Amino acid sequence: MREPRFRDNFWSTDITSSIGYDNLIQHMNDGRKTCKELEDFIKQRASIEEKYGKDLMSLSKKVCGQNELNTLKRAFDVFKQQMENVGLLHIQLAGSLREEVKKLEEFREKQKDQRKKLEHCMENLHKQKTVFFKKTIESKKTYEQKCKEKDEAEQMLNRSSGISNSRQQDKLQSKANQSKQSAEDADRTYQQNVLTLEKIREEWQSEHIRTCEFLEKQDCERIHTMRNAMWVHANQLSQGCVSSDEMYEEIRKVLEQCNIQRDLEFFIDLKRTGDTAPAPIPYENYYSGQRGLPPSRAPVATRRMPLPNPDNSASEPQYATVGENNYSYIRHH
Amino acid sequence: MREPRFRDNFWSTDITSSIGYDNLIQHMNDGRKTCKELEDFIKQRASIEEKYGKDLMSLSKKVCGQNELNTLKRAFDVFKQQMENVGLLHIQLAGSLREEVKKLEEFREKQKDQRKKLEHCMENLHKQKTVFFKKTIESKKTYEQKCKEKDEAEQMLNRSSGISNSRQQDKLQSKANQSKQSAEDADRTYQQNVLTLEKIREEWQSEHIRTCEFLEKQDCERIHTMRNAMWVHANQLSQGCVSSDEMYEEIRKVLEQCNIQRDLEFFIDLKRTGDTAPAPIPYENYYSGQRGLPPSRAPVATRRMPLPNPDNSASEPQYATVGENNYSYIRHH
Repeated sequence: MREPRFRDNFWSTDITSSIGYDNLIQHMNDGRKTCKELEDFIKQRASIEEKYGKDLMSLSKKVCGQNELNTLKRAFDVFKQQMENVGLLHIQLAGSLREEVKKLEEFREKQKDQRKKLEHCMENLHKQKTVFFKKTIESKKTYEQKCKEKDEAEQMLNRSSGISNSRQQDKLQSKANQSKQSAEDADRTYQQNVLTLEKIREEWQSEHIRTCEFLEKQDCERIHTMRNAMWVHANQLSQGCVSSDEMYEEIRKVLEQCNIQRDLEFFIDLKRTGDTAPAPIPYENYYSGQRGLPPSRAPVATRRMPLPNPDNSASEPQYATVGENNYSYIRHH
Repeated sequence: MREPRFRDNFWSTDITSSIGYDNLIQHMNDGRKTCKELEDFIKQRASIEEKYGKDLMSLSKKVCGQNELNTLKRAFDVFKQQMENVGLLHIQLAGSLREEVKKLEEFREKQKDQRKKLEHCMENLHKQKTVFFKKTIESKKTYEQKCKEKDEAEQMLNRSSGISNSRQQDKLQSKANQSKQSAEDADRTYQQNVLTLEKIREEWQSEHIRTCEFLEKQDCERIHTMRNAMWVHANQLSQGCVSSDEMYEEIRKVLEQCNIQRDLEFFIDLKRTGDTAPAPIPYENYYSGQRGLPPSRAPVATRRMPLPNPDNSASEPQYATVGENNYSYIRHH
């Protein structure tokens, strides 16, 4: 079975009606409105993305971790850099969205322009069709009236043929001739109008078919374009997600390089004050000249302090490595 | 070789100096500041996410495609629904970020509280150490002065042993006894101060070691926590990306279901006006009673219009399917 077509379904048996065409034009205008709505939707999304991107970029300028050292310092630098990159990405996304909006606007304008000439032509034909239909009906009435008058004049002439004088006869004959002429004139006018109306009707009928075919094609293109625009929009947003995720992955990578022991050592190298504790202050006997603590105390060995095993050594492994169990609750590409 | 440790590197040979401890406390305060900076950073990110989410949710309420029909209508509905879902996701993300900030705040407060008692104890010991060092130095000077005086008194006594009267002798003897007593008293005080200073020094020394070990442990924990917080933050944002992408994928899925021909048929069913074109208006002869066009024209077959093949049938396949070549420039999971 054939697929339904616009050209087969928007007729009316009333020659003066344009309801089918009106329904189609209404539908095209609705479609045009949808297109505008989608443009506005994407435009606003672009503004939201731009604002979000700018906010992220100014956030990334905030002071964060600048007093840190070595690997943690580097982690903070990359952390902030990637936040800036994500911000920049959203600003670029806003630009891409706006380019798609431009394409939609051009499409909508193109369809409108294409339809303008056609709508003008159809409205003109509808007007002509209605005007000539009325004219035809009127000329038909006149024709019938004139025929009636002609018949009456002929009957009068026939009835009077034996009973009236020749002067009366001549008068009736003249009237019969005159009304016959009028009837023939009205017949010609009526016939001419029927022919013209039929010419217009035929022209309109093929124009209606052409219009239906054209509007169906436009509607196909419009649905195709709407669908495509939503598809591209979803893809652009998805691409934003994928790229952002890659930037966050860079943060995880640099965090994996972060090494607590090396950062502690870096700090120690930078700020160490010495490995020698102050010596005990000894008792000095005025007479012996000998130094020494009071006899009750043995001298304390100082200088380099003895190094007992640190009591937190058991808990150290949890700081020494990263990215094993407790960190990597999400990894994906 | 052993790893460098705080406890071995922040000494000074000057007993009154606290420079090593001061450097460590400065480092801890810097770390505390970083923690606060990261909290503020994540807090601001949460606000940005919340704003973005709210903007997307209000965007999703906009009228868009409500005049559409059938599969394209459904595509628009899902399109808007998924935009709302993405908005909601960012609002929820803001909440998750704020929970992580709370954990960081608690960590920072906990470390501060733990350090408070220790800092109080160390500052007290530094004060005592300095006070008793000065006392010891002073009492040493007094002891030496008293010994000098005692020696002088004894020399006087010895020198006078043959040349002075007994009253003078008694006086010198008494002075020698007295200064001997004073020297012994000063010696005791000096010895006592040396003992006390040594006691304080030892107490401080082991407290300094404990403090260094404790601060090193805190610094480890802090770096660990900073790194972990950035890791969790990056993961939360990545999770947002992955979930958003899934929502955009739902849009692509519904767009794949979009069928132009079915939407055209749906519209035709909804708005069709008839399949019969208006008949030609015939010429009607007044006398024959017969209907017919004027003799010069053959009657036109009307009613159901003949159906020529549509001239756009060649271009149809490009609308009939979707998601093949031109659509799927990006697909990923």
